[in-house]
Amino acid sequence: MKPYAFGIDIGGTAIKLGLFQTDGTMLEKWQLPTRTEENGAYVLPDALESIRAVMARRSILWDDVEGAGMGVPGPVNDEGTVFRCVNLDWDVFNIPEVVQKLEPGISRIHVSNDVNAAALGELWKGGAQGRKSAFLVTLGTGIGGGLVLNSRIVNGINGGAGEIGHFCVDPSELEQCSCGGYGCLEQYASARGLLRCARKVSPDASKNMSAKTVCDMARRGDPIAVNLLDQLGRKLGWALTAVAGSIDPEVFVIGGGLSHAGDVLLSKIEYYYRKYAFHAFRDTEFVLAELGNDAGIYGCVKMLL
Amino acid sequence: MKPYAFGIDIGGTAIKLGLFQTDGTMLEKWQLPTRTEENGAYVLPDALESIRAVMARRSILWDDVEGAGMGVPGPVNDEGTVFRCVNLDWDVFNIPEVVQKLEPGISRIHVSNDVNAAALGELWKGGAQGRKSAFLVTLGTGIGGGLVLNSRIVNGINGGAGEIGHFCVDPSELEQCSCGGYGCLEQYASARGLLRCARKVSPDASKNMSAKTVCDMARRGDPIAVNLLDQLGRKLGWALTAVAGSIDPEVFVIGGGLSHAGDVLLSKIEYYYRKYAFHAFRDTEFVLAELGNDAGIYGCVKMLL
Repeated sequence: MKPYAFGIDIGGTAIKLGLFQTDGTMLEKWQLPTRTEENGAYVLPDALESIRAVMARRSILWDDVEGAGMGVPGPVNDEGTVFRCVNLDWDVFNIPEVVQKLEPGISRIHVSNDVNAAALGELWKGGAQGRKSAFLVTLGTGIGGGLVLNSRIVNGINGGAGEIGHFCVDPSELEQCSCGGYGCLEQYASARGLLRCARKVSPDASKNMSAKTVCDMARRGDPIAVNLLDQLGRKLGWALTAVAGSIDPEVFVIGGGLSHAGDVLLSKIEYYYRKYAFHAFRDTEFVLAELGNDAGIYGCVKMLL
Repeated sequence: MKPYAFGIDIGGTAIKLGLFQTDGTMLEKWQLPTRTEENGAYVLPDALESIRAVMARRSILWDDVEGAGMGVPGPVNDEGTVFRCVNLDWDVFNIPEVVQKLEPGISRIHVSNDVNAAALGELWKGGAQGRKSAFLVTLGTGIGGGLVLNSRIVNGINGGAGEIGHFCVDPSELEQCSCGGYGCLEQYASARGLLRCARKVSPDASKNMSAKTVCDMARRGDPIAVNLLDQLGRKLGWALTAVAGSIDPEVFVIGGGLSHAGDVLLSKIEYYYRKYAFHAFRDTEFVLAELGNDAGIYGCVKMLL
């Protein structure tokens, strides 16, 4: 194996990059703004340009580079074909083909969904270290999910594995989700969903609130905030029993901005998971994600190793 | 690879066995009653005794046998440890260890949950032939589920992968499920569940009914029966959107006794699946299982190949 590898985690706002030794040591990390103009045509060239600059500074040649792993914010299949990335304004195309054309020096390129990559990162160096299977749920503005089985990312035939954010948890919901559906898990259990629910029960008090405020209030025992987290935990914990009934992972990893709330949130999710779970997997462990924004670049590199 | 292999599908009532060539040809199949006395102590010796008799008749030596694959009606982990099989009165033990002691001549033994084995059988020679991933749901007295990814069975860390029969689809249910929970999918979408629901809406009419009668009536347009299948399809189709959000399989295979109802049932399941599914996997194909009771022995043998 060659000595170096790059991790490229492409988000709607920033491209996060990391240079690693192939023994797993991160040598440096940096980021670029994501330029989404002209259907995101600059995204891949920008990332490669920036990698070339780091290589020049460190006198690294492409012959010393095992390859690059890439995470993108949308569904990707096993061949690296992306099926639209709304945040990047990308349509359907095969990423490795385009990257190889832009940089023929690169010998290997693996692509996956960003949350799947983060799940692999958490398994390798984060909260799920030492396990072989894990399901990561990221609670951010929306909800993402990523699955690793036998230490390998599962993409799914349409790149949809882990996409539980739009599982319908309340068919009677009247407000529409961004996906066009009604009653998606994301409408209740993401940071945005939590605020939406807060506005419903307390329209005035919630005006200047963030999801963090709600979690802080719950930690101080505010009954309305406790109730809001209870509702979130019930819907998410219960939805995860369906994930367990599908793949029965070793561990559930809870990540994303909302996960910084820590135990006040995790305890609710766990409580309802165990309440509704079938006995075979009732004791599945829950952990918090540990790598934060670096989970993606770790997982991207791990895809190559 | 040696020329022969055995498939052993152990059920609560019968042990189904098959002798195969390792090119996939089934040479013969037969079955034995399952003796569950003395904590199921006779089950494995009976199966091996019967295999030895067939080998003697055909002058096959253990040196000619690649091994045996076995399916059992309960959760099994990757090492072949079974976590209680209620129907066999089995506790926790490692099946390959016991089999090797009973028959030292056997060179390889692979064990999985019976529905997982059936899923692999359907992928190899049945309704999902040619695919790499499939989720099988068997609608029998209860509900079973089995998962195959990259042409390999996924057991799950507790042997619970595919166990969606006890996913809670209605927390307000007052009647208790056999598992101790309330509102399990099995209480609505299995043959027994369908009859339970029939008794609720039509206590008199349903006295001598079977699940088959309900399906036949629905096919003739009986509004109550149509409504019952509609409810079944809604709960099952919707639950399968959570499976898709977890692993996004190539195809859903519907099997078990109730699946003989065919399109009158399948169309309902598909309709509600597509209604509730996230767009990435909204078009996932649904097929009926094709191998019936033989799916298990096919899948058991495929585990070895």
